[in-house]
Amino acid sequence: MRRVTDGSRPPRAPSPRTRVRRGADRADYDPGTVRRILDAAMIAHVGVVTDDGPLVLPMAYGRDDDTLYLHGAVANHLLASAADAEVCVTVTLVDGLVMARTPFHNSMNYRSVVVRGQAREVADPDERLRALRLITDHVVANWDHGRPVSDADLRRTRVAAVSLDEASAKIRTGDPVDEPEDVAGPWWAGVIPVETRFGAPRPAADLAPGVDPRPPFAVPDGVGR
Amino acid sequence: MRRVTDGSRPPRAPSPRTRVRRGADRADYDPGTVRRILDAAMIAHVGVVTDDGPLVLPMAYGRDDDTLYLHGAVANHLLASAADAEVCVTVTLVDGLVMARTPFHNSMNYRSVVVRGQAREVADPDERLRALRLITDHVVANWDHGRPVSDADLRRTRVAAVSLDEASAKIRTGDPVDEPEDVAGPWWAGVIPVETRFGAPRPAADLAPGVDPRPPFAVPDGVGR
Repeated sequence: MRRVTDGSRPPRAPSPRTRVRRGADRADYDPGTVRRILDAAMIAHVGVVTDDGPLVLPMAYGRDDDTLYLHGAVANHLLASAADAEVCVTVTLVDGLVMARTPFHNSMNYRSVVVRGQAREVADPDERLRALRLITDHVVANWDHGRPVSDADLRRTRVAAVSLDEASAKIRTGDPVDEPEDVAGPWWAGVIPVETRFGAPRPAADLAPGVDPRPPFAVPDGVGR
Repeated sequence: MRRVTDGSRPPRAPSPRTRVRRGADRADYDPGTVRRILDAAMIAHVGVVTDDGPLVLPMAYGRDDDTLYLHGAVANHLLASAADAEVCVTVTLVDGLVMARTPFHNSMNYRSVVVRGQAREVADPDERLRALRLITDHVVANWDHGRPVSDADLRRTRVAAVSLDEASAKIRTGDPVDEPEDVAGPWWAGVIPVETRFGAPRPAADLAPGVDPRPPFAVPDGVGR
C-alpha cells in the first residue's frame, strides 16, 4: 500500500482498478483518509459476483490497521458465494444534500471508500478473536460489558478479512457548482446538512431484575464524525 | 411481479435469486413494503460486475411505480461497465443498534431492499424527463424551484431503469434475542435508536442578491420515516 505520512493527497491510485474515474478531482488515495472514513461509518455494502449476477448486501464491519473484517452469517455467504472470493466493500457517509440552481447540478456532500480485493477466511483463532472484538466495538465499545465469550461462540463464527491495499476514498464538500450564467439567476442554491444521531438507549423488555437500565458503555452522539 | 393488496406478507420470493437466504423469517416480498423502503431512503448502493471483479457505487435514485431510475455519470458508468447490464441495487436504512448480552447476538434494526435485474437505458425523452424529475424530487421536492430544464440538459443526461420485478425486502425490529440461559444474567441489553436528520439549510455563498436565503421548498425533518 502507498504510504503517505505528511497528510498530503497522493495523486496515484494503488492499482488501475482502484482509480476513481468519475470526479477524479475528488479522489483521495491517502490510507489515513480511507481509515478515517471507515472508522466513522456504521455499515458497509459488500458486493460479490454470484451465478445469478452481482449481489450487494449491507454488513457490519471492523478495521485493524489495513485490514477490514466481516463476520458471521454474512461472511459465510460471502465466502461461499464468491467463487474466487473477489469482493468490493463500499462505505458511504452522506453529509449533505447539495441543491443547485438546476437539478442537473444537484449533488450530495459525502465521504466514501471503495475497497476491492479478495476475501480471505480468517483461520487463526487469535486473529478471529481480535477481529470479532473490533467488529463488536466498531460503533459502540461494548465487547467488555457482555457475557464472556465462549469457545463455542468462537468456533461457530466465520470471519472474512479484506486488505485495504486496493482502497480509494472520494470526498465532496461545499457549495453547489452551477453554470456561470445561472449563478446570477433568481434561484435558491445551497446545502442541506445530513446528520446521523443516536437516540436514548432503550433497555430490553426482558432485562434481568437489578440490572441498571442505562447501558454500562458510552454511546456517542452519532456516527460520521 | 407478485401482487398483494391486503397488506399480508407473501411467503414466496418473486424469483429464486431473490429469495432471502439468511434470516428468511425477516424477508418480505410485498411490493408495497419494497416501495415504502425505497421511498424512505436517500441513497442506493449499486453493484455491477466489471472485468476487474464486482464494483459497488453509491447513487441517488428515484422510483416510479415498479421502476427504479438512476442517472447521469453514474448511469453512464453502470451502462458502460456492466457487459450484460446485470445490476444489484441495495438500499439500507439503519434504525437501531441491537446490543445483546453477548456480542455474538448483537445485530441492527434495519429495513433493506435488494433489487436484482438488468439495467435498461431510457431512450424515450418523455420517460427520461419524468425519471429525472423523480430522481430530483426523491428526498426533497425541488425540481419546480430551479432554473427551467433545457433540451441540452436533457440530451446529455443518461438514465438507467431497473425493474422492481425481482425485489425483496428484509426488516428487523425490536429487542435483542439472546440465548435463554443468558437472559437472566447481569448484563445490559437493549436498542440504541439511529436517526438521520436534516440540519438547517445553508444558502450558497454566491447566492444572487435579493434571493431569499431560505429555500423555496419544504425540507423534511429527516429521512427514513
